[in-house]
Amino acid sequence: MAQNIYDQIDFFEGYSRLDRSVEGLDGAPEWPALRAMLPDVSGLSIIDLGCGFGWFCRWARAHGARQVLGLDLSEKMLARARAESTDAAITYERADLDELSLPKACFDLAYSSLALHYVSDAARLFATVHQALVPGGTFVFSTEHPIYMAPTQPGWSIDTAGRKTWPVDRYLVEGPRSTDWFAKGVVKHHRTLGTTLNLLIEAGFVIGHVEEFCPTKAQIAARPELAEELERPMFLLVQARR
Amino acid sequence: MAQNIYDQIDFFEGYSRLDRSVEGLDGAPEWPALRAMLPDVSGLSIIDLGCGFGWFCRWARAHGARQVLGLDLSEKMLARARAESTDAAITYERADLDELSLPKACFDLAYSSLALHYVSDAARLFATVHQALVPGGTFVFSTEHPIYMAPTQPGWSIDTAGRKTWPVDRYLVEGPRSTDWFAKGVVKHHRTLGTTLNLLIEAGFVIGHVEEFCPTKAQIAARPELAEELERPMFLLVQARR
Repeated sequence: MAQNIYDQIDFFEGYSRLDRSVEGLDGAPEWPALRAMLPDVSGLSIIDLGCGFGWFCRWARAHGARQVLGLDLSEKMLARARAESTDAAITYERADLDELSLPKACFDLAYSSLALHYVSDAARLFATVHQALVPGGTFVFSTEHPIYMAPTQPGWSIDTAGRKTWPVDRYLVEGPRSTDWFAKGVVKHHRTLGTTLNLLIEAGFVIGHVEEFCPTKAQIAARPELAEELERPMFLLVQARR
Repeated sequence: MAQNIYDQIDFFEGYSRLDRSVEGLDGAPEWPALRAMLPDVSGLSIIDLGCGFGWFCRWARAHGARQVLGLDLSEKMLARARAESTDAAITYERADLDELSLPKACFDLAYSSLALHYVSDAARLFATVHQALVPGGTFVFSTEHPIYMAPTQPGWSIDTAGRKTWPVDRYLVEGPRSTDWFAKGVVKHHRTLGTTLNLLIEAGFVIGHVEEFCPTKAQIAARPELAEELERPMFLLVQARR
């Protein structure tokens, strides 16, 4: 079972103040890159794995999706998601991605934003998603980048020449990582980039696109603090097809 | 045109003393993982991009390959490769991988060991390799891992808690990297892992396996200095199919 950190009050309150929680998709710098990896959602049946406040579910419906199922482990997030919309074509359900079961060939698109790093058994989840997609269906997700997640002490360092660096260790040592982010002891599961891709391939997916998030010049001009994202990738974005 | 560093006397002499130069494939810790990604080479027509001293060409012939074409930019390496074998089914030719042309659908397997990081135009090379493979043909290669290659000053650091780390910067800044390794000013070309995979996909390849080299417990027991390879990957190994 995945840790339900989002329902801890200190975590939830901190997370709720992030740009991506207040502004939605446009508050997430990786969203334009992730959006570019999506098919035209018009007419599609979509599942959102880790839907949070439901921003993507509502975006998909606004862009013509036929129906959207949003899943999340957090009761608090689902409560706000349900309160934000009365759209009958969006359904929110509580689910643990580590124990998920889905019907066969029901969805044209599976989407997941920054949820998979909380999943311990990615092989099981990818197999579940694969069989739940129609043939030709698409899986698009973002997850924390393994360079970002691997270190014992993730964080910036200044080297002897004054350069900002991201010291990496334990990259090849896969398994849980416990960090403090809004709350103590947030547990994520580190997998190498190779493992993530190989698990997708073993589940039957064809890799379509792999992107390590890099802010555009326009994004850096608008938000200069994004320049540090050039030093090491924070997010991994993947598109795969059944 | 790629830099021909291997023909510089200081570089060549240093490189010639490496385990992988003296012992061949068994002197390269990543070889078992790379070998596991190869098809059965028996009866295959093979091209080796950056064949060096010809260890792989001879291995492939010893394992039943029909014919092997070894390409390298270094005259010194080709001279030694030619001196090591009189096998008429192995041909060695001088070629710059940045300017390579190949006939269509001539090879069942394209292989490359630690040469692609010297190539500036990977898109061009991948397209060239793709059309040179028969449909269903395989491309297996190793290259320096982008985590290893990205930093301004690649090397180990000891953090404040005494941990050995690999400080990463400029990961998202692609382009040439100049380092000193046996000779001053060895030029390699940094691409993110995502870029390498996307260029393969855009060339028409289907990604089959992506491995970030991790020594086995047995390898670490036999060569304890390999334990540091758990901290950050030095090599990226990829298998793709036309």
